[in-house]
Amino acid sequence: MCELLGMSANTPTDICFSFAGLIERGGRTGPHSDGWGIAFYEGKGTRAFHDAGASASSALADWLTSYPIKSHTVISHIRQANVGEVNLANTHPFQRELWGRMMTYAHNGQVPNIKKQPLHFYQPVGETDSEHGFCHLLDLLRSRFAQAPENPMDWFGIVANGCQEMSRLGVYNLLMTDGEYLITYCTTKLCWITRKAPFGQAQLKDADVVVDFGQETTPNDIVTVVATEPLTDNEEWHIYQPGEFRVFKHGESVFNLTLPI
Amino acid sequence: MCELLGMSANTPTDICFSFAGLIERGGRTGPHSDGWGIAFYEGKGTRAFHDAGASASSALADWLTSYPIKSHTVISHIRQANVGEVNLANTHPFQRELWGRMMTYAHNGQVPNIKKQPLHFYQPVGETDSEHGFCHLLDLLRSRFAQAPENPMDWFGIVANGCQEMSRLGVYNLLMTDGEYLITYCTTKLCWITRKAPFGQAQLKDADVVVDFGQETTPNDIVTVVATEPLTDNEEWHIYQPGEFRVFKHGESVFNLTLPI
Repeated sequence: MCELLGMSANTPTDICFSFAGLIERGGRTGPHSDGWGIAFYEGKGTRAFHDAGASASSALADWLTSYPIKSHTVISHIRQANVGEVNLANTHPFQRELWGRMMTYAHNGQVPNIKKQPLHFYQPVGETDSEHGFCHLLDLLRSRFAQAPENPMDWFGIVANGCQEMSRLGVYNLLMTDGEYLITYCTTKLCWITRKAPFGQAQLKDADVVVDFGQETTPNDIVTVVATEPLTDNEEWHIYQPGEFRVFKHGESVFNLTLPI
Repeated sequence: MCELLGMSANTPTDICFSFAGLIERGGRTGPHSDGWGIAFYEGKGTRAFHDAGASASSALADWLTSYPIKSHTVISHIRQANVGEVNLANTHPFQRELWGRMMTYAHNGQVPNIKKQPLHFYQPVGETDSEHGFCHLLDLLRSRFAQAPENPMDWFGIVANGCQEMSRLGVYNLLMTDGEYLITYCTTKLCWITRKAPFGQAQLKDADVVVDFGQETTPNDIVTVVATEPLTDNEEWHIYQPGEFRVFKHGESVFNLTLPI
């Protein structure tokens, strides 16, 4: 299995605190030591960092915890390999362009039979079932809409149906974004928290780090963090239901439904 | 204008020395201070680093000069903006998946009228003529070959024709790769050097740095570096002719032709 981390914010925000907690689980407080990656959006542009080794001992991951990249939307992943070797091509998050937007995707779980699904526009570069599933979702979107539909609900519905299809093949916990919308889906394990004024202190579970968000934010900031398991031990996280599909925009939950698995 | 840097090697090699020279030109010894990026291939996997600011004062670029990522193929770019704002979406190199391979592209020059070219499979994320040209090249490849042709010469020819088309619209100096082949094309300014045994010392033009490649390599290593202008001042670089199209694989020049502009 793997662990996921996502962020959606109404003002460009750094994720150093949460990322510092996550990377400990990649080899120190958790077993997910087969690669890690993180993608940041700045406007329509994205930049991603990947390493095929353990995040807990990665010089690059360590460096990023003290390099505050301010972003509206972030997706990160630490990997414990099931399908596919430990190498860079198999390291999430994956990215592809659709409708002139860079789409970013990370998956926790196993859906090996998705590899039987023929693909059309998009092909995986690596060997993971996860990346195959990403290409399949993008194929569904692209074959239905040559350009981005005016109402984003139209494409959320297609992604939700694709998630339901994948959840029937195994375990499918998902983070996906076009930079504006953070799309999330859970079959087994995912949680979220929205932080806004009045901000308090938070204590990481996986490292001896406390942050006082009141010092780091302005009163208008709204920031949602989504993770496989709660990253802090003194805050209330919302636990996803199996089949729960939820979309965030600018830090707020803007759409959700729960699909039978 | 901008500056380009590429590398092709027969054994995974780091590019710290050349990159240290290039980034000086991004705000210190040269005016290319509107963003920089570098993409590395490790097997079929890639990772890229981008910043929308000046490379000479970028903490990330500085960090990379001392983090030796070993790669067969590298493309880097420092930008002086002409078309499109200074932001991450407009920062080279650009990447798209074609035939299950991640293609990487950087362009030096201006071909504003390429933006009149309708696009099909690929759409730009940013506003540059460069990225539009990349999407056009990939459209040409994809519309001709749904899967990678067995003989790579078949797709080199399509890229060469696309380069010739673009050179007629302006200045088009190109680096492009699928990770295996480093494709280069020149209308105004590009040069290359192949280093192999017996290795000597090299002195950067843009920084007070000397490297003894004899200490850094094995006798079988073959490494080619391609750059807008020579990066060292004590070695002989080959200067491209206008219209010269040249492909490197594993450090060696494997194909070249010169097309009338």
